[in-house]
Amino acid sequence: MMTHTPHNLSITALSKAYQAGEMTPRQLVNELLAAQPEQDAAWITRLSAQQLEPYLARLDGVAPESLPLYGIPFAIKDNIDLAGVTTTAGCQEFAYTPDDDAFVVAKLIAAGAIPMGKTNLDQFATGLVGERALPVFGTPANAFDPAYVPGGSSSGSAVVTAQGQVSFALGTDTAGSGRVPACFNNLVGVKPTLGLLSAGGVVPACATLDTISIFALGCDDAARVLSVTAQFDADNRWAREHDFAVHGQAYGVLPDLTGLRIGVPPRTQWHTDADYSGYMEAAIRQCKALGAELVELDCSPLLAAARLLYEGPWVAERYHAVRELIERNPEALHPVTREITLGGATPLAVDAFDARYQLAEYRRQADALLAQVDVMLAPTTPRLPTKAELAEAPIAVNSELGTWTNFMNLLDLSALAVPVGFNSQGLPGGVTLFAPAFEDLQLLSIARLLEKEFALPLGASAVARPQARLADSDLPMAQNGRVEIAVCG
Amino acid sequence: MMTHTPHNLSITALSKAYQAGEMTPRQLVNELLAAQPEQDAAWITRLSAQQLEPYLARLDGVAPESLPLYGIPFAIKDNIDLAGVTTTAGCQEFAYTPDDDAFVVAKLIAAGAIPMGKTNLDQFATGLVGERALPVFGTPANAFDPAYVPGGSSSGSAVVTAQGQVSFALGTDTAGSGRVPACFNNLVGVKPTLGLLSAGGVVPACATLDTISIFALGCDDAARVLSVTAQFDADNRWAREHDFAVHGQAYGVLPDLTGLRIGVPPRTQWHTDADYSGYMEAAIRQCKALGAELVELDCSPLLAAARLLYEGPWVAERYHAVRELIERNPEALHPVTREITLGGATPLAVDAFDARYQLAEYRRQADALLAQVDVMLAPTTPRLPTKAELAEAPIAVNSELGTWTNFMNLLDLSALAVPVGFNSQGLPGGVTLFAPAFEDLQLLSIARLLEKEFALPLGASAVARPQARLADSDLPMAQNGRVEIAVCG
Repeated sequence: MMTHTPHNLSITALSKAYQAGEMTPRQLVNELLAAQPEQDAAWITRLSAQQLEPYLARLDGVAPESLPLYGIPFAIKDNIDLAGVTTTAGCQEFAYTPDDDAFVVAKLIAAGAIPMGKTNLDQFATGLVGERALPVFGTPANAFDPAYVPGGSSSGSAVVTAQGQVSFALGTDTAGSGRVPACFNNLVGVKPTLGLLSAGGVVPACATLDTISIFALGCDDAARVLSVTAQFDADNRWAREHDFAVHGQAYGVLPDLTGLRIGVPPRTQWHTDADYSGYMEAAIRQCKALGAELVELDCSPLLAAARLLYEGPWVAERYHAVRELIERNPEALHPVTREITLGGATPLAVDAFDARYQLAEYRRQADALLAQVDVMLAPTTPRLPTKAELAEAPIAVNSELGTWTNFMNLLDLSALAVPVGFNSQGLPGGVTLFAPAFEDLQLLSIARLLEKEFALPLGASAVARPQARLADSDLPMAQNGRVEIAVCG
Repeated sequence: MMTHTPHNLSITALSKAYQAGEMTPRQLVNELLAAQPEQDAAWITRLSAQQLEPYLARLDGVAPESLPLYGIPFAIKDNIDLAGVTTTAGCQEFAYTPDDDAFVVAKLIAAGAIPMGKTNLDQFATGLVGERALPVFGTPANAFDPAYVPGGSSSGSAVVTAQGQVSFALGTDTAGSGRVPACFNNLVGVKPTLGLLSAGGVVPACATLDTISIFALGCDDAARVLSVTAQFDADNRWAREHDFAVHGQAYGVLPDLTGLRIGVPPRTQWHTDADYSGYMEAAIRQCKALGAELVELDCSPLLAAARLLYEGPWVAERYHAVRELIERNPEALHPVTREITLGGATPLAVDAFDARYQLAEYRRQADALLAQVDVMLAPTTPRLPTKAELAEAPIAVNSELGTWTNFMNLLDLSALAVPVGFNSQGLPGGVTLFAPAFEDLQLLSIARLLEKEFALPLGASAVARPQARLADSDLPMAQNGRVEIAVCG
């Protein structure tokens, strides 16, 4: 387990430290820079002290309490623009240097956050594994065990957050790229409703299905980042206006889950291995203990929609995004990414419409399903593969990982991955909560209650979650060392 | 001008007559059957007295005031199912006999309406002219002058309503098929918000852009039909739930247009001939006289979206709808329809996505445009062509007619065509009101005020509009014989 700083990097803890005068952003950044290893495949570009100085200088003389993210270090997946720094999307031939920050990055910086660099990813955000990077960039290791995949495509963002190199990170999430790596690295992974966070300044993967995602050490942190970034961007074609207040949503006010109806797929549909079944069981028990009513719901329409993403014509969007490059210089692409993306060159428009019709039918069925409950609970992914397993079947294993993530954006749902515990080897895992669009704050509020009960450590650090409580003793997840660290740490 | 019955067939008038005991549905239907010409290209199938009997029998002993459409005769475009009667969509080889009524037809019959038959159309609802029917079906004549096109694709539905063969008719409207023929036959043509009326039991044209439309003699009639048919169909994938009350909408409560901001395109964007420019001028003057504030708005994004429909990949949806037939037996299609539809076989999925991206940008711009006003006023179509003109350039003239109709469903707008007056040859014309989705009742309420002021006769009949008022004397539209008929009739 790698830990780069002894500090608790959670936003709550850092804000408290700044406000108490125990530390300055410049001190923290210097510590973080000093702790950085020479080589780190989790990053594609790290900002130098000189590049960081303007972000620090703008905080000089500013009261820490006046900015919601004052002095909070964060990482940016390298398919999201940071002004003046190369955006590669994992492909040197594609790279460009933007003049402007992505809309969401600009909001974070304006709120006082400090961009530490751009993180590695599955090239063009195509993958759920974190292993589809060019050799020049290397592939990040899972923050808990380098024999395991970090998850992708937002591999670097997840790993540097788990390791305590930053407090939070931006990823993107089209088919699970923000949830799978969160699950594999003991993080909260928020996949906001499509259009809630502006796509302005983001390299498209499947433009109709892309969203920026948030990796955080906990729900309170994620909620704070969401509140800063979920602003309507009138200049972006995919942006959707919203008003959480109109829908009666607020973060963190739920005292428990009494009266809440939570849908769960029947066990035969989980497709999980023993560890991931265990995480589901633990989450179900904890939801019940918190007062929720669990309702088993046949999720066939959701799983069918998930398959549609892989078997359908949406890959033509990936081809669209890199059409000029892949036609001119196919060698610039990672071989797996190239193979997948070229598959998008040939489907016909009539097939694209046919898939839309099928999707509309699944969406109708999904809406009817979700109308029966307040929120759904499901596996985040079936299992955590090793790097070796992935290398043997790079496409099949990747596809399997998307079983419970692929359908969310197709069906216009809000979703988040929340950690639940660790397996006997100390590897983390969790579950996913999802609901119709714009239920993002409700999901975070529910996840926050689970997080309090499970009381896991922060990311891959030895730092205990503040005010951790003893986890329910009949939970298998509580019977391993990690939770003990959390309790005793 | 053909008139098949001396009765005022407006729903309001008929309901009054039934409730006063002046007539029975059976008497009316017998009169209508007796007045039918031997041959009438406006119909594909007319119900016999025997076929009509069950619909009449179910009204026996029922109080007229207990059903909103008690004894109201209506026509159904022949791409919408009526149980037990062939649906052809204008193609014998495609024809089938449905067991069930379309969802909307079932609602009308349950409300007491009597289906008189299935009407002619541009084959597969592909066209805005009414001239793209197979020889076996013939082509309907414009209800005012057989030298002119009736408008399409819902040609028969418009003509039989204007002629007083029915009180109202169902059409469909993908790119203008419910508004152009309304305009050419002095009718109100309501194009509801997509998904407001169920597509269940309707032959798709472009499934993502299709809606049933309503042809009526006036706004009160259209509102009554809309209120009966706008019910959520949980079984249809395109249906959208709505609640007008939630959005503060009610029909007919506007006393005038005071305080209303109405957007109009600058004259340079109208693309109208002298007559159709005149209709726009008349409508603008009348809106001002009713107290509205007129605001000139650059409509470039709307017109660009309209072009996208013709130049873009949506024609692949038309190909999808008849794929099996057109591959097996291309000769079954009208030559123009075949040529257009086969154009949908080749576009690529990547092009379909590209067009969606462009459309999303236009939609963003359109939303910003429409947010500046309460409602928009625009030409319905640039001009009324003769059948001879159309024959010379069947695709170009057709395309021109869609200038102001093609973009409405692409941009998810509500719209309706309302008559404004007549030209010096006694041919009718009008304008279109449009607004964001689900503003349908607001549009009808505004149109109702214009309708009262213009006080035109009903359809192509000599029947004056009840309580007709003298039209504003400075309106050019008031200076012709038609309006005098209306005033004196």
